[in-house]
Amino acid sequence: MKKKRPTIKDIARKLDISVSTVSRALRDAQDINPITKRKVVELADKIGYKKSVLAAGLASKKSFLIGVIIPELTVTFFGTVIMGIDEFLKPLGYDLIIVYSDENENKESDCIDLLIDRQVDGILISLSFNTRKDDHLRRAMEEEIPIVVFDRILPNSVLPIPRVIVDDFDAGYQATTHLINKGYKRIAFITGPTDMHISQERLLGYKTAMERNGRGTSADLIVPTIDLRRSVGTALDKLMVLKERPDAIIAFNDPIAFKLISLLHKRGIKIPDRIAVMGISGDAMGELFYPSLSTINQPAKEMGYIAAGLLQDRINEMKKAKDNGRVFIPMSIIRKLPVQLIEREST
Amino acid sequence: MKKKRPTIKDIARKLDISVSTVSRALRDAQDINPITKRKVVELADKIGYKKSVLAAGLASKKSFLIGVIIPELTVTFFGTVIMGIDEFLKPLGYDLIIVYSDENENKESDCIDLLIDRQVDGILISLSFNTRKDDHLRRAMEEEIPIVVFDRILPNSVLPIPRVIVDDFDAGYQATTHLINKGYKRIAFITGPTDMHISQERLLGYKTAMERNGRGTSADLIVPTIDLRRSVGTALDKLMVLKERPDAIIAFNDPIAFKLISLLHKRGIKIPDRIAVMGISGDAMGELFYPSLSTINQPAKEMGYIAAGLLQDRINEMKKAKDNGRVFIPMSIIRKLPVQLIEREST
Repeated sequence: MKKKRPTIKDIARKLDISVSTVSRALRDAQDINPITKRKVVELADKIGYKKSVLAAGLASKKSFLIGVIIPELTVTFFGTVIMGIDEFLKPLGYDLIIVYSDENENKESDCIDLLIDRQVDGILISLSFNTRKDDHLRRAMEEEIPIVVFDRILPNSVLPIPRVIVDDFDAGYQATTHLINKGYKRIAFITGPTDMHISQERLLGYKTAMERNGRGTSADLIVPTIDLRRSVGTALDKLMVLKERPDAIIAFNDPIAFKLISLLHKRGIKIPDRIAVMGISGDAMGELFYPSLSTINQPAKEMGYIAAGLLQDRINEMKKAKDNGRVFIPMSIIRKLPVQLIEREST
Repeated sequence: MKKKRPTIKDIARKLDISVSTVSRALRDAQDINPITKRKVVELADKIGYKKSVLAAGLASKKSFLIGVIIPELTVTFFGTVIMGIDEFLKPLGYDLIIVYSDENENKESDCIDLLIDRQVDGILISLSFNTRKDDHLRRAMEEEIPIVVFDRILPNSVLPIPRVIVDDFDAGYQATTHLINKGYKRIAFITGPTDMHISQERLLGYKTAMERNGRGTSADLIVPTIDLRRSVGTALDKLMVLKERPDAIIAFNDPIAFKLISLLHKRGIKIPDRIAVMGISGDAMGELFYPSLSTINQPAKEMGYIAAGLLQDRINEMKKAKDNGRVFIPMSIIRKLPVQLIEREST
């Protein structure tokens, strides 16, 4: 009973050609070698590739499906962004296919292929923390599927893709300035993985705020987590063995701050008296912690609205170009959303 | 630009007939009045209903899409169930359309229509807390779409649908027994809305455990929340004005327990010394609270696996019946999953 549905990918693998070529062959595109086309169609028939035979009828039509790729299903921030996306797109008749990469670059690439296979009208994606290549995004673009990247972007990608981010530099800057204003003297920063873009931005904000306030930054007060799930304990250990311990710690994000609060309680260290804790995210759960978590709020729902709006724009632009027989020239767009301090009891 | 895609529902509304009738008319079913059929087809053509004209070709085929309806996008429990569903169904070639009801019966009904419109191969649904009718589930069944309900079910529905629940009675029973064994004397229960099935089950488990241990139950120790999001403070107020205050409180679920811990901190009441707090859910966040939350674990991922498995069975059974020219007789199935005590610091 457990027979797998054959996909475009299976055909591509067997013929050692790209997913994109298979897709073009199946929808009878003109710009393809007739021999390749025949090979693809024959193999598709042989292995019983049903979907795209049917979908061929849909080739020039819209599916009114939008694919959304997030790194994790159980992070409130992404759930809230999706609510924003859904509220924007539902009135326009779009439904969402939600898939998750599990913070894994290979799975993320599979997600893209899945959505290509489903002939979605567009893709909204937030990258896994270890994604470093943009081949999969390029693949979707070659399929003429508009893409918008939100929150977790590839800063060095030259692909002309709209991107929505929050002002991560300012998040780090505001968090640090808040602690300086409250009188904390030795402010540490537990960052995300060092090569992760938003982690670098927040750290730069921290350093800039420290320097502008005449503090300078000491390398031993900056400790990275290896990934976003574990190693918070190790990071804290490194800070606690310092000769001069920090009196405040900024966490890369709220989930890390929650873990930090828990660890400090276990070690009997009073928050904020002995060590203040500052998050960055604006997770609603922060209000319920003891002490409640000061944080920098990221406008998650608004991010969903704006990402969805940019996607709608691109879909319309592409359609218009096609209708007018013009070539569509995609452009890069970056929208940076402002962040806001939420002061609570932990600082 | 913001033109809404016409759906089956629009046609149904305009002709004042059921969604199910429209759908049958569009796929040219035999059991329908020819005049109605003509009206539907003409109106569909007039308002530009595209999807199902194309989808007509798919009528007897599979879409390999499964719809998942959950009450909230930002609750860890449901996110984890979906991970289980996805892990089970993805290797079989299915993709998920995830939609959410926002804890609203009407929106939930719209979700079902959306999935009917998308011609999904099956639906997995957890009901909103105020859903009391099963008309929408019946509608999907009339469309020959198999349904499985998980976690939040309608206990009185006579529809022959597979259901997967956890042993909510035992959850209440185990939570209460744990507190009795730890020596707590006056154990209160903050329940969910009183007419919500799983809330009743957990309460019954509490009462049974109290009685079996010779405690009896006092009505003033049982207070309901109005919905699942607010009114925890009001419930706590009712307990705190009692002449004899409780020394332990069981919360209907972990999110309510988190709120309770926060409120007790704010009032300067030590946990568990003055009042112990017990949750029911097994939310991973409970480990990070101070004090960390004792809870009854519900096997969320396993629930996803089992619900998906039941759906696969039903899809296969329906296909088999059809292939053999037999009428498919659906049956009710209830799978009840065991729960498990997680003892931490709050009790």
